Amino acid sequence: MGKKIQVGILGIGTVGSGVLETLLNKDCGVEIKKIADRDTEKIKQYPGISPEIFTTEAHELINDPEINIMAELIGGVNPALDFIKAAIKNKKHIVTANKELIAKHGKELFELAEENNVVILYEAAVCGGIPIIMPLRQSLAANKISQIAGILNGTTNYILTKMEHEGSEFEDVLKEAQALGYAEADPTGDVKGHDAAYKIAILASLAFNKNVDINSVYVEGIDKISPIDIGYANELGYKIKLIGLIRNGESDLLDVRVHPMLVSKEHPVSAIDDVLNAVEIEGEPVSRVMFSGPGAGKFPTASSVVGDIMAIASEIPTTEFPLPVMHFDKNRKDACIKHIKDTVNKYYIRVTTNNEPGVIGDLGIICGKNGINLYSIVQKGLLKDGSARIVLLTESAQEENILKAVDEISQQPATREVNNLIRVMD
Amino acid sequence: MGKKIQVGILGIGTVGSGVLETLLNKDCGVEIKKIADRDTEKIKQYPGISPEIFTTEAHELINDPEINIMAELIGGVNPALDFIKAAIKNKKHIVTANKELIAKHGKELFELAEENNVVILYEAAVCGGIPIIMPLRQSLAANKISQIAGILNGTTNYILTKMEHEGSEFEDVLKEAQALGYAEADPTGDVKGHDAAYKIAILASLAFNKNVDINSVYVEGIDKISPIDIGYANELGYKIKLIGLIRNGESDLLDVRVHPMLVSKEHPVSAIDDVLNAVEIEGEPVSRVMFSGPGAGKFPTASSVVGDIMAIASEIPTTEFPLPVMHFDKNRKDACIKHIKDTVNKYYIRVTTNNEPGVIGDLGIICGKNGINLYSIVQKGLLKDGSARIVLLTESAQEENILKAVDEISQQPATREVNNLIRVMD
Repeated sequence: MGKKIQVGILGIGTVGSGVLETLLNKDCGVEIKKIADRDTEKIKQYPGISPEIFTTEAHELINDPEINIMAELIGGVNPALDFIKAAIKNKKHIVTANKELIAKHGKELFELAEENNVVILYEAAVCGGIPIIMPLRQSLAANKISQIAGILNGTTNYILTKMEHEGSEFEDVLKEAQALGYAEADPTGDVKGHDAAYKIAILASLAFNKNVDINSVYVEGIDKISPIDIGYANELGYKIKLIGLIRNGESDLLDVRVHPMLVSKEHPVSAIDDVLNAVEIEGEPVSRVMFSGPGAGKFPTASSVVGDIMAIASEIPTTEFPLPVMHFDKNRKDACIKHIKDTVNKYYIRVTTNNEPGVIGDLGIICGKNGINLYSIVQKGLLKDGSARIVLLTESAQEENILKAVDEISQQPATREVNNLIRVMD
Repeated sequence: MGKKIQVGILGIGTVGSGVLETLLNKDCGVEIKKIADRDTEKIKQYPGISPEIFTTEAHELINDPEINIMAELIGGVNPALDFIKAAIKNKKHIVTANKELIAKHGKELFELAEENNVVILYEAAVCGGIPIIMPLRQSLAANKISQIAGILNGTTNYILTKMEHEGSEFEDVLKEAQALGYAEADPTGDVKGHDAAYKIAILASLAFNKNVDINSVYVEGIDKISPIDIGYANELGYKIKLIGLIRNGESDLLDVRVHPMLVSKEHPVSAIDDVLNAVEIEGEPVSRVMFSGPGAGKFPTASSVVGDIMAIASEIPTTEFPLPVMHFDKNRKDACIKHIKDTVNKYYIRVTTNNEPGVIGDLGIICGKNGINLYSIVQKGLLKDGSARIVLLTESAQEENILKAVDEISQQPATREVNNLIRVMD
């Protein structure tokens, strides 16, 4: 063997330090040539590392001709995008955990990498430590994928699990999660579903070899879920999870979205609780396979980053053009994403009404008029204020029709409030 | 692009026909050059295939210089072993679903492949459609694996699930499974654990880069599991599963075995029922990831076989030495396997005794004398014949000590029978 493959690490925050410790703990067949981070104090935490390989200037790393692979671990779009582009132009392979960057600028970066005959691997960008990108590209490559459904965000899964177990309100559990470090000070990206949207967009691009515009992905967070909904879901045989969903039907339109769902307890994804993530892939010929595990965290994410580094490193000595399977198809088309109002789902609708005769009959009539079959209706006694809480579960219906029905229901004189509308996965 | 990669398919039984149909249904970037099967009738099922590419002579395929990849789908050791060796000598890459062959002759075949600069891929040999071989080699390559625990056989999982749901005896469920085609006419390989042993040996070789002698793997089947045990397990918070287990501790000895276990309902593997398989991998830095799905069957197995074919086909045009990550380490050492009596486990012991004073005290004394701490003891009333059924759950203890204690218990005058001894996984 000749000289070891040289790696540059850009950023030693949480993920970067996990990557560094993993590379120091195990012989991964590579050598750390340079580490760049703006914070000069960080390097002092690693007595095993010579201070000379540390720099505060990213460009020292990007311009080092001996570095074969750059691991970008600073996150966010700026300045990561510029750094990666510069490194690619300098013929460096890229490994990144940056889901936002891949979701927003993947096409541009992949094309640039292709022109420069390098690859970009990003196993860690989707579900942290769970192998999902490589299996989709390799072991499952023979499949025509019909559905991908996953719990792609650990923070929201933790919150929903806590709400379920303790019957607590969303806001209270969120505060607790922030105090424990399971949710960030600004939790918007997680609880509003944007983090999961990046991941489902990346999976959709990959599984269908199309460019998915992140802005066309419908996103709804978990902030409107109440313990009352979780309780009813439980009685009806469901758990509420934030689901990243891709469905590929007969039309050319790809259905890609993130929103809370009632997930049947019979569905394996429903069993994935706390901060864990899971992705279930359905396709022919495989039928259904599921991958589950830690979707984030310093060390699980490092597992995937270092796995990617090793995959490139193992191929560089033998070929000019490594990992053909990870190369980008320059003819990749833009995906047409189905509008949420055109999607077909089952629905959970919770309504508060006055306690008047004929209320349930009216709900039934409105649904029927809009072509919606009801699967079940639950009303159990009256609330303290004399109102009635009614929960409807529908059969499959087009969202546009459901929205019309909900609008009509909310305009009924007896209706006090349509409290929630949640899609259902059996 | 030049000429497509040429594939030869050896055997069109269940898996072979699934592979053929998958290749015909989707553009996988390869061309079927020849199909060999002893049964000339089979080809007539595929009107889309020109009869000229069909042969009853394996050697026509093996000796065809244009074939790049041979998919061996006849199963068993003979004549598959000779066919594969001949094909490797003719510089063909091999894809196989043959677990018995890889478990028994892997080392010999991998060495021969290495000499001839070709690779052998066998994703389908372990857990059918579930990607596990490639993820272990690539995405999880950075990990120091400490444990692999899996449900690796669908037939036994189906039988145990049925026994649990219906409270039926093993023999009755087996007969039913045979009638339904879920168990073979000769079910020995499945119910005695040999099929799972091939798979756990393959996973151990791969995860620890050592040659594992299949004869040194301890194997125990499910034929002694009674619905009584399943009932007690349930009450204690466990399900009984046939588990393939690898543990890698501080010593040089690798602990590799297959036997039934009480698996805690908190453990994700316990939720995998019916014919499904699952593998949980524990290591640093990833912590724990689980893969689950269909472990057998025509189409799921075809998914993995064709995935392997595509992985090789994508690399052949770009390199002389494809898939470095799948190459065999010629310096790979033989694994030293820990003897089952030296393993450390928690145990479930079911004993039937006379209803005499001091019986439970005596059991406690015998366990204590052998250094075994008890975690719980259950005795609920008396059986119809006046005897007492006592269930012990121990803390972790060395198997040698447990066997001594069981021997002493069985020699107590009050003991009618030690009915079962089952290891426990929390």
